[in-house]
Amino acid sequence: MTPMMMSQLTITAIMEHAEKVNGNAEIVSVTADHPRHSYRYRDAFRRVRQLANVLSELGVEAGDTIGTLAWNDYRHLEIYYAVSCSGAICHTINPRLFPEQIEYIVNHADDQWIFIDLTLLGILEPVKELLPKVKGYIVMCEEASMPETSLPNAHCYESLLAKASDEFSWPELDENTPSALCYTSGTTGHPKGVMYTHRSTILHSFASIAPDVFGMSLRDVVMPIVPMFHVNGWGLVYSAPMVGSKLVMPGPKMGDGETLCSLINQEGVTMSAGVPTVWLALLDYLAKSGKTVDCLNKVTVGGAACPYKIMEEFSEKYGVEVQQAWGMTEMNPLGTYNGGMPHELDSLSEEERIKIKLKQGRPTFGVDIKVVDSDNNTLPWDGKSSGAVKVRGPWIVNEYYGYDGQTLDDDGWFETGDVACFDEHGYMQITDRLKDVIKSGGEWISSIDLENCAVNHPKVAEAAVVGIPHPKWSERPLLLVILQEGQTMEKQEMLHWFDGKVAKWWIPEDCLFVDSLPHTATGKLSKKDIRETYKDYRWPDEA
Amino acid sequence: MTPMMMSQLTITAIMEHAEKVNGNAEIVSVTADHPRHSYRYRDAFRRVRQLANVLSELGVEAGDTIGTLAWNDYRHLEIYYAVSCSGAICHTINPRLFPEQIEYIVNHADDQWIFIDLTLLGILEPVKELLPKVKGYIVMCEEASMPETSLPNAHCYESLLAKASDEFSWPELDENTPSALCYTSGTTGHPKGVMYTHRSTILHSFASIAPDVFGMSLRDVVMPIVPMFHVNGWGLVYSAPMVGSKLVMPGPKMGDGETLCSLINQEGVTMSAGVPTVWLALLDYLAKSGKTVDCLNKVTVGGAACPYKIMEEFSEKYGVEVQQAWGMTEMNPLGTYNGGMPHELDSLSEEERIKIKLKQGRPTFGVDIKVVDSDNNTLPWDGKSSGAVKVRGPWIVNEYYGYDGQTLDDDGWFETGDVACFDEHGYMQITDRLKDVIKSGGEWISSIDLENCAVNHPKVAEAAVVGIPHPKWSERPLLLVILQEGQTMEKQEMLHWFDGKVAKWWIPEDCLFVDSLPHTATGKLSKKDIRETYKDYRWPDEA
Repeated sequence: MTPMMMSQLTITAIMEHAEKVNGNAEIVSVTADHPRHSYRYRDAFRRVRQLANVLSELGVEAGDTIGTLAWNDYRHLEIYYAVSCSGAICHTINPRLFPEQIEYIVNHADDQWIFIDLTLLGILEPVKELLPKVKGYIVMCEEASMPETSLPNAHCYESLLAKASDEFSWPELDENTPSALCYTSGTTGHPKGVMYTHRSTILHSFASIAPDVFGMSLRDVVMPIVPMFHVNGWGLVYSAPMVGSKLVMPGPKMGDGETLCSLINQEGVTMSAGVPTVWLALLDYLAKSGKTVDCLNKVTVGGAACPYKIMEEFSEKYGVEVQQAWGMTEMNPLGTYNGGMPHELDSLSEEERIKIKLKQGRPTFGVDIKVVDSDNNTLPWDGKSSGAVKVRGPWIVNEYYGYDGQTLDDDGWFETGDVACFDEHGYMQITDRLKDVIKSGGEWISSIDLENCAVNHPKVAEAAVVGIPHPKWSERPLLLVILQEGQTMEKQEMLHWFDGKVAKWWIPEDCLFVDSLPHTATGKLSKKDIRETYKDYRWPDEA
Repeated sequence: MTPMMMSQLTITAIMEHAEKVNGNAEIVSVTADHPRHSYRYRDAFRRVRQLANVLSELGVEAGDTIGTLAWNDYRHLEIYYAVSCSGAICHTINPRLFPEQIEYIVNHADDQWIFIDLTLLGILEPVKELLPKVKGYIVMCEEASMPETSLPNAHCYESLLAKASDEFSWPELDENTPSALCYTSGTTGHPKGVMYTHRSTILHSFASIAPDVFGMSLRDVVMPIVPMFHVNGWGLVYSAPMVGSKLVMPGPKMGDGETLCSLINQEGVTMSAGVPTVWLALLDYLAKSGKTVDCLNKVTVGGAACPYKIMEEFSEKYGVEVQQAWGMTEMNPLGTYNGGMPHELDSLSEEERIKIKLKQGRPTFGVDIKVVDSDNNTLPWDGKSSGAVKVRGPWIVNEYYGYDGQTLDDDGWFETGDVACFDEHGYMQITDRLKDVIKSGGEWISSIDLENCAVNHPKVAEAAVVGIPHPKWSERPLLLVILQEGQTMEKQEMLHWFDGKVAKWWIPEDCLFVDSLPHTATGKLSKKDIRETYKDYRWPDEA
C-alpha cells in the first residue's frame, strides 16, 4: 500500500508553482546588454520552455552536463531551470578560478555546451583548445550585441530563443536526478565536484525559507548578491520562486556599491545575501554618498565570518539587521543560521547579544551537526570544547562527482574541515579550519582567533597565523603582519599586544613583518601558500 | 552514484533536532490532573524514550496501530512521537464521533492498545465488548488519579513510564513508513482512514512553517486549539518542535474562552489555530470580561469558512490578524493559506482587501490544485469559473487505508469534494461542497452562498439550503430557517431579502421556518439528513 502520493520533489515543481500562483512577481536584472531588465515570473518560465526546446535542438540529453560562466541575471536563471528541469545538469563555473582550474573542471565535468556571459569571453578564449569535448558556446546576449569571438561554434542566446516554440512538455523526473554541479576549489589537489539533486534542492529551499533562516515571504524583494556560481547563489534562485518573492539580480555589478544602492532603493529590496566584501563596498558607498537604504531590512552574511563593524554600521546607521550563515559547497550550502534568538537568551545584555550574533548560528532543521575530538569522540555543547565539525543530512554531499577518494568518514558523516565550538544554546562558533589549526603540546590553537586579535591592533592592516613545526611543542604559531601604510612597529610591541587577550601559551612564538600575503581565487588568505613559503623558517631559539 | 546523502525524512529527525537544538523550549499543558503542567522539550523527549520502552514491553511492533482518545496535552504529544518514531502508527480517534463510528474505526484500524484521557473513559466503556482486538488501555494520568474503570487490562500511564528506562535506540525508518492514521467521517458510508507517512509529515511541516503560511519562528508561542485528533492538529505538534516554538496546549479546555484567554496572556501566546467556533467562544469571553490578548498576533482559522465578524472583531478590537486556511484530512491537511498578499494587490481598497481575506487563500508550494467542470476540463483562474477542486502532491492521500474503492481519479488526482473558484491572483474561494451544490437548469447554485446571505438577515439565527428535485429545472434551492428567539417573519420577507444580493435564478424557490437543524459529529450542518427529512417535500406549484 502507498498511503500518500509519491509526488517527486523536483525543481520543475518550483517552476510550475511560481508560474501558476505567482506569475506576476517580478525579476529585475542588470546585464551587459541591459542596464535594467525587468519582466515577470510568467515571462521567465515561458522563455525557459523556449530554452528547453533550444537545448533539445542542440542535442542535449538527460544526464548531460551544461556549463555556465555567468553573473546573476535573468538569463542565468532561465538556464538554471531549463537545464535542470530537462533532466540535464547545470554546471556553474566560477570565473574567478585560475585558467588551469577552469580547464580542469570543464573537462572533468564533461560539459557539452557552455553558456557564457558577454563580459566573460576573455576567460575561455585563451583555453578553448584545451576544451575539446565542448560542442559549442552560447553567448548570453541579443543578436545586436553578439561579439566577435574565437570560441568555436558560438551561438547568440536570444537568436536561438527567438526561433524556439514556447511549448514544452517537461519530463517527469525522479527526485534523485542530479540537477546541478558546483566545484569546490580545495586548497590541495584538483577542485572537487558536488552534484546537487532535485530532492536536495527542494529540501534545502524548504529549510531556507523558514522564519528563523532567510524567512522569505512573497512580500519580500530579494537581491542575491552571492553569485549563482557559488553554491547556486545559496539557493535563492530556487527559494525566491518557491515563495513568490520579487528577485533583483545585480549581474556583473555585484561588487559596485552605487549600483547595489540604486537597485535596493529603486526596486524596494527588503533582503539580500552575500560575502562580507560586498557589504564593505555598499557601506563605503553609502558613507561617501550620504544615501540610505530604508527599504532594506536584513542582509545575510556568509562565506566568511562577518566583521563586527559591518554588523554595527548596518544596524546603527541604516537600521539593517545582519544575520550570519554558515555552510559550504558540500552542503547546498546551508548548515547553520543566526536568525531568531531563543527566548532563554531574552535577558542578555546588548554586549552579550552581540557576542552571540557574531557566532555562525544554530543548526537548521535537516542538518545534523557534531563536533569531535581527534579520536572522533563527540564533544559536548558547553561553550568550551572545540573540535572538528561533521555533518549529515539530506542536502549534504554523499560522493564527490567522479572522485576516487572517500568523501565521508566511516560512519557516514561528512567532515567539513572546520573547527568549531557549540555553546549550550546551540550556537556554533567557527574557530579555525582543521588544516590551519595549530597543534601545540597536544592542544589546539585557533589561527583565526590570533589573526582577529592581531588586526585589532591599530597599526595592523592584515595578519596571518600559521603553525610551524617546533621541536618541543610539535607546532607553534608564527604571526605574519602587514602594517598599515606609514606605520612602524617593533616585534615585541606586536607580541605584547596579545597579553591578557589570549591564553599565554597561544601567544605567537614569533612575528614577521611582510609586505604582502597570498590569497586564494575566492579572496581568502592562502594558508597553504604561506606554509609553503615559510617551510624552512626556523624559530629564533632553534638557530 | 548517489551524489547527496539519502537521509530519510522522519519524525524522529524532528524529535532529535528539537531535543538537541531547542531543548529548553517549553511545553505548557492543561490536563484533567494538572491545571497547568509545564516542562521543556528536553524533558518531553526523555519521556518519549521511556514511553518507547513501555510500548516495546507491551509487545508493540513496527507497523502496529495504537489508538489515542485524547485532548491536546503533553502526554498526547509524547504518544505521537513515541509511537511513530518506534515505527508504529498513531491512530487518533475523534471522541465526538458516534459510538458506532468509534467502534468501526477501532476495529478497522486494528488498534492494539488505546491511550485514553481520564475524561473520556465513558466513551469506550460502553462499547468495550465490541472491541475484542484491543489488548488493553493506558489511562493518561498519574497513579493517584487512576480511576475505577470497566475497561479490561487498564494501565496507568505515569506508572508505566516511571518503571521504564529513558534510554532507547530509535530504529532507522524509511521515510515512507506510515506514521499516523486519521479517519474522516464522510457523509456516506463508513469513515475512511487516511494514513500519513513520515515523509508526508516532514514535507507538510516544512511547507507550513513558511512565512506566508503559519510563519512559525522559535520566537513564537504556539497554541494549537485545533484538536490533535483532527488531522494531527493541523501538524502543529510537528511544526512547532521543528522550529523550536514554545507550545501551549489547552487540553479539554479548548472550547473555554476563559481558559484560552488566561493561557494566552500568562504564557505569551503569539499565534493559535482552530475552527471558527472556538474563536466565537474566546471573543465572547473577551467582550464580557473586558480582557484583551495583547501578545496574540495571529490566529489561523480552518475547518469552515471564517465569518467576517470574527475577522473584524479580532482585528479591530484586539489587533489580531485572522488568516484562513483550507485543507482536509486527506491533505495532511494543508492545501491553501491566506497569508501574505502579493504586491500586485497593494493598491486595493480596504473593502476589496477584506473580500480577499475572506477567501480560502492561495495554494501552498507542494500542493498542485485545479478546478474542473463536469467533463473534467480544467477551468481558468478568472474569478468566475467554479468547478470541482482536485489536488495532488506529496502530502495528499494516495489510497485510503484498507479501502476497496478508488481513492483517486483516473489521472491520479484526488477530488476534494469541494466546489471553488480561483481568481487571477491565485486565491481560491470555496463556493460549496460538490454534493450540496444545487444543479438548476444545467448551472450550479452555491448552497453556502445562499446560507451566508440568509444568516445576514437580522432575524435569522441559522439557515440551510438544499437542492430538491424539480420537474422543470432538475433541482431548485429550498431554504430552511431558524429564527432568532422571539422573532417572527413571513416567508415572502425572507425570500425578498435575496433580491439584488444574488442572481435572480439563485433565489430559493421556497422557504420553511423550522425549530432545529441536524448537525454532524464535527458540528457542521448535516445536509444529508436535511435532504432525507425533506425527500417527500413538494414545491408549492407542484401540489
